[in-house]
Amino acid sequence: MGTEAKRVDGGTGQGAFGARIMQLADRLAQWSDSPDGLTCTYLSPAHRAVAAEILSWLRQAGLRAEIDAVGNVVARYPATDPGVRTLIIASHYDTVRNAGKYDGRLGVLTALVLVEHLARSGRKLPFHLDVIAFSEEEGVRFSSSFLGSSAVAGKFDKALLDRRDADGYSLAAVMHDARLDPARIPALARRPEELLGYLEVHIEQGPILLEEGLPVGIVSAIAGTVRYLVSITGTAGHAGTVPMARRHDAAAAAAELVLYVERRCAQAPTLVGTVGQLAVPNGAINIIPGRCELSLDVRAADDATRNAAVADIMAEVGRIPERRGVRIESKEVQRTPAARCSPHLQTLLADAVTRAGVKPRYLASGAGHDAMMFDGLTELAMLFVRCGNGGVSHSPREIITAEDADVAARVMLDAVLRLAEQS
Amino acid sequence: MGTEAKRVDGGTGQGAFGARIMQLADRLAQWSDSPDGLTCTYLSPAHRAVAAEILSWLRQAGLRAEIDAVGNVVARYPATDPGVRTLIIASHYDTVRNAGKYDGRLGVLTALVLVEHLARSGRKLPFHLDVIAFSEEEGVRFSSSFLGSSAVAGKFDKALLDRRDADGYSLAAVMHDARLDPARIPALARRPEELLGYLEVHIEQGPILLEEGLPVGIVSAIAGTVRYLVSITGTAGHAGTVPMARRHDAAAAAAELVLYVERRCAQAPTLVGTVGQLAVPNGAINIIPGRCELSLDVRAADDATRNAAVADIMAEVGRIPERRGVRIESKEVQRTPAARCSPHLQTLLADAVTRAGVKPRYLASGAGHDAMMFDGLTELAMLFVRCGNGGVSHSPREIITAEDADVAARVMLDAVLRLAEQS
Repeated sequence: MGTEAKRVDGGTGQGAFGARIMQLADRLAQWSDSPDGLTCTYLSPAHRAVAAEILSWLRQAGLRAEIDAVGNVVARYPATDPGVRTLIIASHYDTVRNAGKYDGRLGVLTALVLVEHLARSGRKLPFHLDVIAFSEEEGVRFSSSFLGSSAVAGKFDKALLDRRDADGYSLAAVMHDARLDPARIPALARRPEELLGYLEVHIEQGPILLEEGLPVGIVSAIAGTVRYLVSITGTAGHAGTVPMARRHDAAAAAAELVLYVERRCAQAPTLVGTVGQLAVPNGAINIIPGRCELSLDVRAADDATRNAAVADIMAEVGRIPERRGVRIESKEVQRTPAARCSPHLQTLLADAVTRAGVKPRYLASGAGHDAMMFDGLTELAMLFVRCGNGGVSHSPREIITAEDADVAARVMLDAVLRLAEQS
Repeated sequence: MGTEAKRVDGGTGQGAFGARIMQLADRLAQWSDSPDGLTCTYLSPAHRAVAAEILSWLRQAGLRAEIDAVGNVVARYPATDPGVRTLIIASHYDTVRNAGKYDGRLGVLTALVLVEHLARSGRKLPFHLDVIAFSEEEGVRFSSSFLGSSAVAGKFDKALLDRRDADGYSLAAVMHDARLDPARIPALARRPEELLGYLEVHIEQGPILLEEGLPVGIVSAIAGTVRYLVSITGTAGHAGTVPMARRHDAAAAAAELVLYVERRCAQAPTLVGTVGQLAVPNGAINIIPGRCELSLDVRAADDATRNAAVADIMAEVGRIPERRGVRIESKEVQRTPAARCSPHLQTLLADAVTRAGVKPRYLASGAGHDAMMFDGLTELAMLFVRCGNGGVSHSPREIITAEDADVAARVMLDAVLRLAEQS
């Protein structure tokens, strides 16, 4: 492996970063929980093998690196003065089921090639640069996301240790088997005063950069999410014998709500609303639906926009029963605030993007990212990389180009060096 | 049992018919395929026990009765002259799962008390009166309805003999176990020239008679049914990262179709349209639906009204993909023509209803009934009986009153005697 690595990362010329990132992403994708497709869930054998690979690459680059108490791979490219603050560049190495190769890992590998370059050049920085590959962001195994980044941000929820996976193993037991000590998680928390900032590279997971012909974009904010589960109870009845005017059809009520969500969420640029789950339980072709269940997910780059939309949707949820004689129960199951990116770090990235010959494009992130965990703790910013295939992610069809990965790595290196000059 | 029966059916005074019908319906409901609730599916032990009870009651009334090759209980109250034609009064004794006690059985028991009365009185008719309790109408066990009545109408589909139930037993094997000989089914077919007509009493399964305060109504037509299965394919995507304007949401497309069906089918009195099945397969709260599946059931008392509605709905199915960039596949899975009831027999029933002191109310049947099988074979008519509980059926909440059952039996007896006078 070391030989291979040396063959590619020898140069720093145009394209070398991108080629190495793509090669290592392919390499990590060989480890999977399932034989068909890429799945890498928290502390599975594949997951631990991936962590070991990343650890070895960081050590080969000459960095002090370790796996922390929650499974994060953490490496420091230290400043000469131990008392200075720390810039974190990070992302996650776990995946969803049947995943693509770049969601999360692109950010880890961009940080890796960046510190490999710094270590090779011997260039010292006036701040510590910590590269972190977070162990868990996708929430697949324990239905709880951000296990890795929440620990580093001091926001780990200890109650999760009792949560069980689909096989009945608790999070605490799974960590114990992997020789991770939950008691040491609180000590992972970084203090605001020791942090200079947080940067993350991630695939866009959407079509905007692709449609505008741009390799990278600067994230302006990470949308917050409000989620509801909605259950509509109407009156079941014989499809042939109940006149239309006398029906209380739960599916028709749900259809009105689906279209209202769609209409209302089209009214602001970063606002999106999704009914992802929709079902008439035990529906029959000849029975008027007596029940319909659906989910609601509303996001926007700012909480005011999102909350106004949610309020309007809930007002509609209040009006539908009057019109249709149905009952609607709705339960809020998540409310995450939006995270605003640091104007200073956005400008730092935008200037580097411009110097790379690319028009700076600011865009909001509709997806959640590890960066959100650091909101309020330190300044944060993110660089998005263009996706192919219409912007699809969480799919084997998720792709990026080596050229775009190269642009991202060069922009990040440029930004870090500029930050060093400013510090 | 015989003793009990004599105790109740001794009188012919007001209420005696109704009391006996309710008592016998309760008795039949004690036989069920499952311990919780009433389920009586084709040739189950409960089903065969019910047939044996009905057979014994008909024989106790003095009629020649037998179980035919498809499991129908058939009895004849013969005319003196063997060469005359036959009036059939029939309904079915099987049920849906978790059924009510009256769907189907009310018609069987009304016919029973009618011939019990005729036999007691010794009154001879100038036509044979055949009482038939059809073995299968609901289509539960073999996903094919009208097994009993289709045989008598000469419309039994032999291909069904190979169809298997949920346990893998073929219809032929199940009949063989019950000592029924499928080879004898064709001989059950009645010839048009030997039939005088077909009458059936059934619960309304809807709210109209209840809301109008009428114990019975005269069926004007039995709606035909067109059914489709519809599959919508959109583009799955991340709920946070795909802007609303760029979505191809399969569930939103389905919602438009659901509301179109509802709107269009409200435009004609007997027209009804139902989307009973609706689901996003494997839907997730944070994924834009890439697929949505639904069923469609459209009925009307006349085929022209129904076909016009179906044509409009399919035109909308054709327009939605243009608007939304989705693909829609629709497959017609059923097309049953409407059956018109005989004007002569409707008038016969209406005159009897009037003589019973009830305003004659004509209404279309949205549900299918055994009577449909006799469309084109002989003149047919149906008498509906008021349901309680808002008109609910196919449910343990399905109820009727003894008073209404009594009105129905007296109306039928009156109509049969009037028909005898006319013949």
